[in-house]
Amino acid sequence: MDELRSHYQGRPVLVTGGAGFIGANLTRALVALDAQVTVLDSLSPLYGGNLFNLDGVEERIRFVEGDQGDAKEVGRLVRDFDRVFNLVGQVSHVDSMEDPYTDLRTNVTVQIALLEALRRHRPDAKVLYAGTRGQYGRPGPRPVDESAPIAPIDVNGINKHAGEAYHFLYARAYGLRVSSLRLTNTYGPRHTMRTARQGVFAWFVRQALDGQEIRLFGGGEQLRDCNHVSDEVTALLLAMASPAADGEVFNLGSPRPVSLHAIAGAIVAAAGSGSVTRVPYPPHLQSIEIGDYVGDYGKAKRLLGWEPRVDLAEGVRDTVEFYRAHRDRYWTREVYP
Amino acid sequence: MDELRSHYQGRPVLVTGGAGFIGANLTRALVALDAQVTVLDSLSPLYGGNLFNLDGVEERIRFVEGDQGDAKEVGRLVRDFDRVFNLVGQVSHVDSMEDPYTDLRTNVTVQIALLEALRRHRPDAKVLYAGTRGQYGRPGPRPVDESAPIAPIDVNGINKHAGEAYHFLYARAYGLRVSSLRLTNTYGPRHTMRTARQGVFAWFVRQALDGQEIRLFGGGEQLRDCNHVSDEVTALLLAMASPAADGEVFNLGSPRPVSLHAIAGAIVAAAGSGSVTRVPYPPHLQSIEIGDYVGDYGKAKRLLGWEPRVDLAEGVRDTVEFYRAHRDRYWTREVYP
Repeated sequence: MDELRSHYQGRPVLVTGGAGFIGANLTRALVALDAQVTVLDSLSPLYGGNLFNLDGVEERIRFVEGDQGDAKEVGRLVRDFDRVFNLVGQVSHVDSMEDPYTDLRTNVTVQIALLEALRRHRPDAKVLYAGTRGQYGRPGPRPVDESAPIAPIDVNGINKHAGEAYHFLYARAYGLRVSSLRLTNTYGPRHTMRTARQGVFAWFVRQALDGQEIRLFGGGEQLRDCNHVSDEVTALLLAMASPAADGEVFNLGSPRPVSLHAIAGAIVAAAGSGSVTRVPYPPHLQSIEIGDYVGDYGKAKRLLGWEPRVDLAEGVRDTVEFYRAHRDRYWTREVYP
Repeated sequence: MDELRSHYQGRPVLVTGGAGFIGANLTRALVALDAQVTVLDSLSPLYGGNLFNLDGVEERIRFVEGDQGDAKEVGRLVRDFDRVFNLVGQVSHVDSMEDPYTDLRTNVTVQIALLEALRRHRPDAKVLYAGTRGQYGRPGPRPVDESAPIAPIDVNGINKHAGEAYHFLYARAYGLRVSSLRLTNTYGPRHTMRTARQGVFAWFVRQALDGQEIRLFGGGEQLRDCNHVSDEVTALLLAMASPAADGEVFNLGSPRPVSLHAIAGAIVAAAGSGSVTRVPYPPHLQSIEIGDYVGDYGKAKRLLGWEPRVDLAEGVRDTVEFYRAHRDRYWTREVYP
């Protein structure tokens, strides 16, 4: 971490979507490294931005509530930064199918606003983009490395890939430096808990803590790579700090993929409440089910020296304890600004 | 053509962008096959829609001037059609880099409006999408077949690919039938002549007919596949009529790729005026220059029985004569509705 400290200490850093799940965990890590963090977040009631996610670090960051798609506003803001963690976006596959326009705006139009601003005002900046395993769609032979075909099977995957392609295009055409991490299932503290749509892991935790039945579509045998958010934050910090990452995409992943059924079981065990049941796969969701996904993170290991550190049992305990303690900040709408 | 006639005769067909270059040539061919054609076109002053393109067939079609991105309007319209040629879009690489928002709207948002309308009202429809060689970016080994990597190097390529991906996604999720033709350099009558940005071939013709100097960036040795619009229209008609094309993408191309320099020379010869000169490649356009492009149209030949029929010399003569006769309908702004 000394290497990371020397990169970030005293450095002005912009985090878009910095009140959201990954953004806020990253912001907290940057504060711990003594970076000068500015968070830009729209605090949209639809997504995961939550001021409580920044509880305890408010005094050490600058918080800008604003529309990331407002090119003028973003243009004024970016002038001060040569490091931008670009974590704005929405991640729900189901929402993207029901309202492709909103997903397009959140995952593409907003990206254009940032990139146009950087092109004009900070072409020397480096930008970290948060991609997704959804860019690969239903993967072929596993584990999936970065050469796998791009073949998204939902609107979110199409738009997230377009957002990534825009980043690399602006790098080539205007000189920005860009890296993309294609994230897999991320879990841990500070995820939104309001709907099942933003990620099943968090929803399982809520159901378990509420003593409810976790319903696994199609039996829950689908394998998933789970990364604790603290490991993901480390990957983001390393990729930003490493010149070797410029122009590169990286898959994340874990050494031990697990089934959704095993994840749900671990959560129920840690919570001491809730139960797990299997239900048929809803027909309207079948077309966007990706089957098993196991990422090959060999490139991140090789170029960034990154490996996941938190094992699932430990990560699940940490996650369940966080929400048990802060349920009132995540369950209800009222606490949202 | 008897086979095509039996498919189209009396059949209600919708052509989006049907007052534009390819759309209008297609509409005229459909009228000749006795289809019942409805054209939807916004007649945007920025693009190629031009009522003169439909001169002589106005009485045999229904023309709807409307915003293809207006989901409600499109929703009302599509109910009557199980065959949609979707030729709306803008094609300028340079414009897309200067105004990515407009390109996104024209090439993605508008596609979502049509696909959402079809999903709701005509999930039994078949849609023909006009893709582009720009989806491949700077191609690797030539000729380029449909398995080549998708790697666009400009905003237009990213958005056109997203538009195509949306089509196949809606096919998988909602049952639409979809084919995409990835078009290469198309030339012929009824192309817009107002700027150089919508296609160099047409611009060369205008310059030659005006007795001006055609300036070739970087020497003009770049190879291009040129398809006369009548050949492209045949490919569109065949792909729509053929169940074997459902779910498939097809590259078009020509058996004899030619350099931009040779194209310009043929145009000057046919026009009997103008000249050709070579100038250095403008630095701001270098990042979006694709180099040589030669498409492999073997799949279209195999599955659709398609081959280009019009050779370049003949096509150039036909094109030059058309614009010589109708210059007043294409050169000036005033003739645009």
